[in-house]
Amino acid sequence: MKNFRFQNKTDIRFGTGRLDVELHDAVSQFGSRVLFVYGGHSIKKSGLYDTVTGLLADLQLTELPGIEPNPKIDSIRAGQKLAKDQDIDVVLAVGGGSVIDAAKVIASAKFYEGDPWDLVKDRGVTRRKLQQLPVVDILTLAATGSEMNSGSVISNPVTHEKLGTVGPNTPAVSFLDPSLTFTVPARQTAAGSMDILSHLLEQYFDRSKNNDASKGMIEGLMRTVIKWAPIALKQPDNYDARANLMWSATMALNGIVSVANENGWTVHSLEHELSAYYDITHGVGLGILTPRWMSFILTKDATTAEMLAQFGRHVWDLEGDESYAVAQAAIDATFDWISRLGFPMTLPEVGIKDTQHFDAMATAAVANASLETRAYVPLSVEDVETIYQASMTDGLA
Amino acid sequence: MKNFRFQNKTDIRFGTGRLDVELHDAVSQFGSRVLFVYGGHSIKKSGLYDTVTGLLADLQLTELPGIEPNPKIDSIRAGQKLAKDQDIDVVLAVGGGSVIDAAKVIASAKFYEGDPWDLVKDRGVTRRKLQQLPVVDILTLAATGSEMNSGSVISNPVTHEKLGTVGPNTPAVSFLDPSLTFTVPARQTAAGSMDILSHLLEQYFDRSKNNDASKGMIEGLMRTVIKWAPIALKQPDNYDARANLMWSATMALNGIVSVANENGWTVHSLEHELSAYYDITHGVGLGILTPRWMSFILTKDATTAEMLAQFGRHVWDLEGDESYAVAQAAIDATFDWISRLGFPMTLPEVGIKDTQHFDAMATAAVANASLETRAYVPLSVEDVETIYQASMTDGLA
Repeated sequence: MKNFRFQNKTDIRFGTGRLDVELHDAVSQFGSRVLFVYGGHSIKKSGLYDTVTGLLADLQLTELPGIEPNPKIDSIRAGQKLAKDQDIDVVLAVGGGSVIDAAKVIASAKFYEGDPWDLVKDRGVTRRKLQQLPVVDILTLAATGSEMNSGSVISNPVTHEKLGTVGPNTPAVSFLDPSLTFTVPARQTAAGSMDILSHLLEQYFDRSKNNDASKGMIEGLMRTVIKWAPIALKQPDNYDARANLMWSATMALNGIVSVANENGWTVHSLEHELSAYYDITHGVGLGILTPRWMSFILTKDATTAEMLAQFGRHVWDLEGDESYAVAQAAIDATFDWISRLGFPMTLPEVGIKDTQHFDAMATAAVANASLETRAYVPLSVEDVETIYQASMTDGLA
Repeated sequence: MKNFRFQNKTDIRFGTGRLDVELHDAVSQFGSRVLFVYGGHSIKKSGLYDTVTGLLADLQLTELPGIEPNPKIDSIRAGQKLAKDQDIDVVLAVGGGSVIDAAKVIASAKFYEGDPWDLVKDRGVTRRKLQQLPVVDILTLAATGSEMNSGSVISNPVTHEKLGTVGPNTPAVSFLDPSLTFTVPARQTAAGSMDILSHLLEQYFDRSKNNDASKGMIEGLMRTVIKWAPIALKQPDNYDARANLMWSATMALNGIVSVANENGWTVHSLEHELSAYYDITHGVGLGILTPRWMSFILTKDATTAEMLAQFGRHVWDLEGDESYAVAQAAIDATFDWISRLGFPMTLPEVGIKDTQHFDAMATAAVANASLETRAYVPLSVEDVETIYQASMTDGLA
């Protein structure tokens, strides 16, 4: 087991009915000048906007609405200007992962004199030397885990780049109220659940030896997502379904389950290229690619059968002594589960009808994520193209 | 799923070779006047004492040696006096859970004018309103989880009390080097492993509904302990065995896996009375009592069969559709695993030959832990006596 360092100071306030009692103090402990960052209409429609502005009526709220999914660098630039002009004390993010991602970079950009794209472009090297304003967030979507980590993914439409940047701090306080996700539409619930499962899978399929504590916890979280996502789809206001998905999303990416890991992520980098070239939903892309990636690595490297079989036995309750067969059954079970969430399961179904960009996308994915050296199973450009190609047709090859 | 709040700021430094590079700064960031708290000869024999004093030679170390297993209030009193007299800035605890427990209470006692037993007696109500010095620790035994929580258990030999007290803060920095546990004798390794498993069981058997994320993580941690404890016993210097036990111990009691739980603990309170009346090792007492408690609750309340069966399926890989039978098999598997660690499995084997104190012990256990109202399966004084009685004879009733 490798050496690791772990610290995560985020103050989690999980459950219903907390905002009325706790939000004001959670924000005002850091000051009275608040940058209130949010997305579009959904928090106005749900009444959350009114709740927040009502509870914080005695503070100086400066609003930054309009944060889009895949938040854009122009939003960060606007936030930087407001944070400096208004001498903001604390950033309040209300929304899903995109809003919180944006808030965290803005919280750094207040202390940076240049263009905040610099803070993304260098993956956070500069940010981690800067101060960062405290971020308080109210999460409205179970998916990215941004509420308890220091990462953000920011897009630059001019350069066609979508890059991750890691800052110095996780959010100071995160309010996780599962009932705020009752109104999340089925398609987004499915995509969010797939995102959670993918985060867990990316950390589970790792070559670190004997890292059983982490792998065991991941297995438990995967079982939780697999059980509750279909229930949340059928019963959008099932509190326990929403609660299990929300806490699993947070635990999946707060650093706990990846301690001592060795490998970088694979499927996320393959999907980032899909999203960059075609404007598809991240979770949908993950759902299409994940089982094809599993099939590919099992075929390419038979030593993966043991880990895929453990995944089958501990997560899907599969039986049998033949690891290769159990591995194959685990991949089938994964494919079926994703299908049952209502996902389109091929690239043509999401509008990717030809293969013209596959070479460029594969080249970028391999380069950006160092897939030839850092992946669980190292992948060449040709390997990645094969996985994209396998995603063009129904079922598993 | 119940509402919960979670925050844990401990900075974990896990792995080998870190002390030389990191210890000095980790301690001196809080000041130069250091209270160095430790136990007996073992850290002198192992060379750790020399390592620590060498690395911190430029700081003002005040030593408080002699912290015993089941740390005594007199040690806390001595630490309080030193902390005040020397105007200590930071407490450095080097040892197992007892040393860290003592350090945390001393860290509070510096800011209290009265007898520190007050800070234990009220379970920490007063402590949580006081300041607390930062605690840096170097862990030498995988067991209690004290390295990442705010609890301490302190004994008062005069009043025959052994009580838990919860302070305001977890340790500031914890060095977890698995190789420091290579020299832990087999008996202590077994007792420590049983303590870890018991912490996990006490949080797993809880009536909170649909708390699947937590239960899933606990299952993974239990599998880890069950796999690696026997390996650590056979190969004391197996790094991965020691590492998995150490990290599981920390994760078992840092608050993560008990979020949203409802019930108090049971077996620990039954064991505390054994330790209070007879000076037996905590982990050994837990090993004897745990399977008897499981048998008792299955007999008393058939609704426990489902949870015991889930424990059997997910932790012991048992198969079968009959929950009651799987539950019984899970209890047998637990009993066998504990036996194979080399434990004495009856009370007479640890010197408890008669039942004269059982009534008083049961009365105290029920009262101290509110077992009639707060336990997973509520227990009366008679119930507890039955469990003690079942621990007098071989095997399971």
